[in-house]
Amino acid sequence: MTNASTLNPRTIFKGHGTENDFLIIFDEKGELDLSTEKVALLCDRRKALGADGILRVIRAGHLGEPLPAGVSDDMWFMDYRNADGSLAEMCGNGVRVFAHFIFLHGLVDSSEFPVATRGGVKQVRVHEADAYAARVSVDMGAPKILGESAGAVDDHELSGLGVDMGNPHLACVVPELTPEDLYSWRFQAASFDTAMFPEGVNLEVLTPLQDGRVYMRVVERGVGETRSCGTGTVAAATAALAAANKKHGTVEVRVPGGAVEVEINATTSILSGPSRVVARIEVAEGLL
Amino acid sequence: MTNASTLNPRTIFKGHGTENDFLIIFDEKGELDLSTEKVALLCDRRKALGADGILRVIRAGHLGEPLPAGVSDDMWFMDYRNADGSLAEMCGNGVRVFAHFIFLHGLVDSSEFPVATRGGVKQVRVHEADAYAARVSVDMGAPKILGESAGAVDDHELSGLGVDMGNPHLACVVPELTPEDLYSWRFQAASFDTAMFPEGVNLEVLTPLQDGRVYMRVVERGVGETRSCGTGTVAAATAALAAANKKHGTVEVRVPGGAVEVEINATTSILSGPSRVVARIEVAEGLL
Repeated sequence: MTNASTLNPRTIFKGHGTENDFLIIFDEKGELDLSTEKVALLCDRRKALGADGILRVIRAGHLGEPLPAGVSDDMWFMDYRNADGSLAEMCGNGVRVFAHFIFLHGLVDSSEFPVATRGGVKQVRVHEADAYAARVSVDMGAPKILGESAGAVDDHELSGLGVDMGNPHLACVVPELTPEDLYSWRFQAASFDTAMFPEGVNLEVLTPLQDGRVYMRVVERGVGETRSCGTGTVAAATAALAAANKKHGTVEVRVPGGAVEVEINATTSILSGPSRVVARIEVAEGLL
Repeated sequence: MTNASTLNPRTIFKGHGTENDFLIIFDEKGELDLSTEKVALLCDRRKALGADGILRVIRAGHLGEPLPAGVSDDMWFMDYRNADGSLAEMCGNGVRVFAHFIFLHGLVDSSEFPVATRGGVKQVRVHEADAYAARVSVDMGAPKILGESAGAVDDHELSGLGVDMGNPHLACVVPELTPEDLYSWRFQAASFDTAMFPEGVNLEVLTPLQDGRVYMRVVERGVGETRSCGTGTVAAATAALAAANKKHGTVEVRVPGGAVEVEINATTSILSGPSRVVARIEVAEGLL
């Protein structure tokens, strides 16, 4: 599409990772006043452009916030804002789109590079990228297993594995569940053990591991069901392997918005999946 | 933003009228293969850009469909597609955005001009337009009163006036209803007399006329509650005047997505309201 020299904060890009969608704003030096109100307006799907959140591309040193350990001033920082304007730490789908974007525009000189986030430095690798599509891997860190717990989705009672991925998950493998059954569930209300998850939990329901693959649906805390959740797919792979009496392995996780691959090894987890950059957008004066 | 000479079908615009939102595609000579699949993909809010529908700007003679009475080959035709790719006749909010767009880009040489639609020729007038905002009036034709009927929204039983605006409406003025009450209703399920409306109906609920104003909510057939419905505001104004024992007058109709003004006179109805063009978009190869 273009190179860094023609990028500016008034030109926005739209992209998605397994249908978790984002507006990408290039603002290397932090010159943009990206207020809560502006974020909420830009992310309004009818009044403006619409997205699940905004990925601001900024050098860490210009962020104006205390930086997490390991982040240096010259790193590219993924300044993630939720659609309501609040700050977010990390997003496993967003970081793929972010990496695709900065690789596409020549902002890095290698296909493997660090991305700074409020959740720390994430190591990414961009595979097979063109202007529209890419496949990107990100090191998501080692899942921390919290133990067994119970929950429910509507009137389906579940048991699952608590997994901490920086955010809390309850990943429930349902014995003998088929993909058809899973997609027939209503998925309105999730419940869980509030003593174990006092700040809420993201709840994944999945089929047992078969031929290296699981099918998953997710209810994200504070949001409801979504098309995909990056950290949720890692939690799901962890639980699927555990239910098959394995600690390590590679699992294809199919979500409503597409498919990703999760590798769990002795030291960390690697999430690989698609990124799409669908449009380059000039917004009207006053909207940004 | 630009003039006609730089417009092309690969550059899309996004706009909305009282939060009924559209992608605007300039395709004067009908060169674009705008298949059902492409429309559905472009209107997908997560995979691509997202909108309630597409307004293709094309000369009537290039449409390749039989033209309604009164439409000549050189007229600008609003080729409206619903988000699912199906064809639509007319859209009272869309036609304002369409008129704003063709005025903005110098495609007409006056602020009053005809817009051809599958529902016939609509006479429009553009007031106070800039690149972002405009106010546009459109002659919506005379409302045809069908008579009294009964209906319900959730457990609220209603009586109202059947009004044909090219599409069927049941506009229900609720005595003593306040705006606060109206906005507290759940608005999940609408029911109506299927003998009177065998092909379904758009159901409006509104406060009584006070200080020349009503507050309205609408359930569109086949869609559910929407932020606004152009023909619905004309039906609502007609019913509000009738409930106040008036045949003619001007009514401000406040909908969740904003406010419009409806004039009902002896021969026709004029709908006036806002249009916004929020962005100019280049889509990735393969999406269009």
